[in-house]
Formats: sequence, C-alpha cells, structure tokens
Amino acid sequence: MDQLTKPLGSLGRLEDLAAQMVSIREETFADPMRKAVYVFAADHGVTAEGVSAYPSEVTRQMVLNFLAHGAAINVLAKAHQVEMNVVDVGVDADFDHTAGLLHHKVRRGTRNMMREPAMSADELSEALDIGLMLADSANEKSYNLVAVGEMGIGNTTAASAITSALTREPVDLITGKGTGLNSEALKRKCLVIEAVLAKHFDNLPPNPLDVLRCVGGLEIAAMTGFILGAARHRIAIVVDGFISTAAAAIAFAIAPQVRGYLFAGHQSEEPGHRALLEYVGLLPILALKMRLGEGTGAVLAMPILESALCLYNQMATFESAGVSEAKD
Amino acid sequence: MDQLTKPLGSLGRLEDLAAQMVSIREETFADPMRKAVYVFAADHGVTAEGVSAYPSEVTRQMVLNFLAHGAAINVLAKAHQVEMNVVDVGVDADFDHTAGLLHHKVRRGTRNMMREPAMSADELSEALDIGLMLADSANEKSYNLVAVGEMGIGNTTAASAITSALTREPVDLITGKGTGLNSEALKRKCLVIEAVLAKHFDNLPPNPLDVLRCVGGLEIAAMTGFILGAARHRIAIVVDGFISTAAAAIAFAIAPQVRGYLFAGHQSEEPGHRALLEYVGLLPILALKMRLGEGTGAVLAMPILESALCLYNQMATFESAGVSEAKD
Repeated sequence: MDQLTKPLGSLGRLEDLAAQMVSIREETFADPMRKAVYVFAADHGVTAEGVSAYPSEVTRQMVLNFLAHGAAINVLAKAHQVEMNVVDVGVDADFDHTAGLLHHKVRRGTRNMMREPAMSADELSEALDIGLMLADSANEKSYNLVAVGEMGIGNTTAASAITSALTREPVDLITGKGTGLNSEALKRKCLVIEAVLAKHFDNLPPNPLDVLRCVGGLEIAAMTGFILGAARHRIAIVVDGFISTAAAAIAFAIAPQVRGYLFAGHQSEEPGHRALLEYVGLLPILALKMRLGEGTGAVLAMPILESALCLYNQMATFESAGVSEAKD
Repeated sequence: MDQLTKPLGSLGRLEDLAAQMVSIREETFADPMRKAVYVFAADHGVTAEGVSAYPSEVTRQMVLNFLAHGAAINVLAKAHQVEMNVVDVGVDADFDHTAGLLHHKVRRGTRNMMREPAMSADELSEALDIGLMLADSANEKSYNLVAVGEMGIGNTTAASAITSALTREPVDLITGKGTGLNSEALKRKCLVIEAVLAKHFDNLPPNPLDVLRCVGGLEIAAMTGFILGAARHRIAIVVDGFISTAAAAIAFAIAPQVRGYLFAGHQSEEPGHRALLEYVGLLPILALKMRLGEGTGAVLAMPILESALCLYNQMATFESAGVSEAKD
C-alpha cells in the first residue's frame, strides 16, 4: 500500500478496509467481487405490548414488497449488482405458496418476552442452524462479500434488550424511536425492555446464547448463525444497522475472532447502535443518518469496500510509474 | 419521498441528496447518470519557498500517471463508470506531444506569490475561460453529474491562503500537512501564507477574484470557471477536497446561487476544508480520512448520489405495494 502512487496514508480508511479484506482471504480478492445481501424476516411477540409505530402485518407486507422488487433494499441491490436473498425465519403469515422466498420458518413470530423467553432452546437452535446453513450455501455460490439485513416489526425492542444485556448500558440510553415512535410511546418501550431484562436475567452477566434466546428474535438468531458461518468460510461480512449489529455482537460474544471478518456499513440513527459498534470494536464506513434496516446501509457501503480493494489491486507504484517520492 | 415504502425520513441524508438533484434538473434524472471527472493540473511558483513535501516535478509525473491509468483517480473512475478528463492548465512541463491530455496551458506554473500576484489579470481571465469552455463541452457530452479534482504540488498553500482571505480564519488553524510535511516545515508553510496575505491584501475584505488572482492557482481558477459554467448548464457538481472546495468557495463568493448545484464528496483531513465547507454551506457525504485530491473523494461519493436518485425513482409507494402506514 505504501508503494502506490499517493502520499503515505492519504487514502485514509480505504487503506485499512483494503488491508482487512486482503487479510480475510489471504490471497488477493478478484474484483469485481461476488456480492449478496441476505434479508432475514421474522415477527416479534413483544409487539403485543405496543412497542412499534407500525402494525405487525407490515413484516408480511414488506416481505411481499421485497419479492416484488419495490423496497429500498431491492433498489440498492440492483444498483450495486448485489444478489438479493429474502429469508422467512419466522414471519406471522402463511407464505407456503410464495415463490422467490427462502422458506425457513421456525415459528410464526417469537413468543412475547414480557411473559416467557422469546424462543425455546430448540427454536433458538433451529434458527442458528438456518443461518449456518445459508452461510454454507453462500460459500457454495462463491460469494466473497455478503451484507446482512432484516425486516421485523418490533425488532428494535429485541435489539435494545440485547444491547443492554451485553453492554450493561442503561435502557433509556440505548433505546430509540425505531420506525417512528412519539416520545410517550418511547417511554413505554423503555419500560417494557426494563421489565423484560428484570424478568429473564439476574445480576450476573448473562450468557450470550441465553440473551439471544430470552430477548432476541428468530431473524436475529439466524443472522448470528449466518455471521458465524460466513466467517468460518472466510467471507467478508457487512453488517447494516442496529439489529444486524446486535446479531454480530452476539456472534462476537460467542467467538471474538469473528470481528476480523466484519465491516460496519454505516452508523445508524438508533442510539443503541453506537454502543454495539463499540462493544464489537467496529468503525462505521458511512454516516448518512439512515435508520431503515433491510440491509440498506450495508449494501450502500459495498461500493466503498470494492473501491478500496480496486485501489489496492490496480494502482501503479512509484517505481512502475516513475514518480518521485517525498523528500526526507 | 414520503409516499415510498419506508418509515418517514428513514433514508436520512439520501432523501436530501435526491431532493437536491431533482431540484437541479427540475425533471427526474435518468439513471444510470452520465458521469465525468475533470482533473485540473498546474504548478505553483510558491513551491520555491519550500512549502511541499514532494518536489514540483511530481505534478508532471502524476499527469503522466493519469494518462497511463495508474493513479487512484483512474482506478476509482473505472470502478464507477466515470469518464476521466485530464486538463493541463499550467503544468511546468512540455506536454506538446502528449496524447490523451486536454491542452490548455496558460503558463508553466503560477508566479511566486511571495513576490508578486500568482497570476496577471489576463492569465486569470484565461484560466476562468478554460473552465467555462470545458463546462460547455461537458454539457454537449450530456454529462449530468461531474466531479472536480486537481493535481498541483504546492496547491494546499494556495488553498489555505484563499481560505484565510475568504473566511478570515487564522492561518495556523486552516493550514495542514498537505502531502505530508513535518511539523517544522508546516510552521514555515504558515509563515509563508501569512506573509503572502499581508503582502497582497490590506485589512478590507478582498474581492474574491482578487483573492484568486493574487494567491490562487491556475487549476483553482479553471475549476472556479468550470463550477460556474456547470451550474449554468444545470449539471450537478461534486467537489472533492480542500483545493476544489477552495474553487467552489470563490465561485460561491461570486455567485451564491451556485450552492444549489454543489455536493461535497467528502470531508478531507486538511484542516482548512471544514472552514470552507461551512463558508459555502455544504455537508460532506463521506468522511473516510482521505487527503489525496485528484477528485478521489468526489468520485467515491458518486455511487451514493446515484443510489439516492435510484431510490427516489424506483421504490414502490405504500399504496402501490399495499403496505400499511404508521399508526396515528
């Protein structure tokens, strides 16, 4: 990198991104890269507590919007040549005859974590396995750069509960408006999360898999499995916003070496995202005040990652170009 | 924008970028956009004062590197389908028989502004006209998105002098290491800039064209003309880092309405860039700690701008997709 025709370090973070990508594959990546986004969808029993601005049926409606190519992630995936995969891990809808969807429903939504753990041990295990299996399939398709996104009304509540359990940050500091709560509803959401944490965990630091099972979501568990599996296959992984980073944080808590395979696509506007990025040790690539999910911030960062790799692979060196180096 | 299938405002700055682009063309831009980068190269007489880490001949060498497709800007332009134009406005070299270069040399480098104005009135006028003429040519080629970049050893000194003259900020706060000065050389650079400002301007706020003529550069003047001309043709303009934003600041001082046509590709590491962005009223799209110039930060932001426009043009609405809107 230091031999390329530019002042030392002048490509800034692009130099670090290229170095990390090259270290993931050991050999040089070919460019253009083989890219895919996996959007994991599921519903959340905790929506019964009134924690979201949108009704639960929007999860189903947005899955159909993904399949009809009408959502933001479809537009970005098409613009940046990223293959789109939509996975039903637990949407509260009957998709039996729906084409174009990866059918892996564990259950029609998690249980209401105000009353019982969001998942049983078997359900958690099944959701994790789905992610691992999809990572195997991503590897078989020779993807070398994957984005992780999600859709699930209620899932910022689960992500905030995970964030507080992992980082010990107070609930009110890491809980946000989600898709657009007013301030009164935000207060209610914080109370629900505090009650949920008090119900499931005592004062001891909880085990990351117990956090995921008690206060997570089926899509978050599948993303956790996917991230662990993709890292095992040396696939570079771009996480998106708050929810997918919650999955990355659980994966990191289980296996810290996963961090070297992770890129943070962007800094989300959800306040808990900053705490999670810090917990995992990731610097976001973009900061565009987005808070949409679906993998949008991750896919939008892909051209930056590809650019970093192209610069590393294709620039001339001082010697090859006959350019003088800096004095002293 | 508010009818598209996403929570209100959840695309963050992408929504503002799309709105600005649509307001520039009045009608909807077609996507993909027709993109070009113009790299303006020139030398600076003030390098005789020892203000740069690299020798002056690097300007000529880098122009040859651009023509041989070996520089960072070549790699990024190719990766993002951006047509590359290299303009000699004043390189201290004989390029008479060099193919692939736009030949518009006004003079072999500016005069040393420690002793006399960097340009005569005629030289300034000629450089501005070159930029205006190239904007006409960009319009004839139907480009609707252009990046402005530069190469010129010594040009951060000119940009810092312009910044201090326009914003009245103290020289030491808006002067940086350029391509990599050590701290002693940086002190010398600041003293040179202070002496230059004292020599050419009294205490009255100077006229922006006088600033450009006395302490600017031939490439900076050509970029100023290019920006004014491109705005007149309703072409969206992405400025790069410190030097091209100095040109944009002069253009803005002459014709404030130019701001509506300008996008700031990134936040450069040069400390004066922040003052210039604030002066013009621009928010950078990327912040990747780059400080290379050549138009690299501007071209790297183009996929983000295109993404914003694609989202606006292609996403489904709540009604068309049958998605429920937020409660209350």
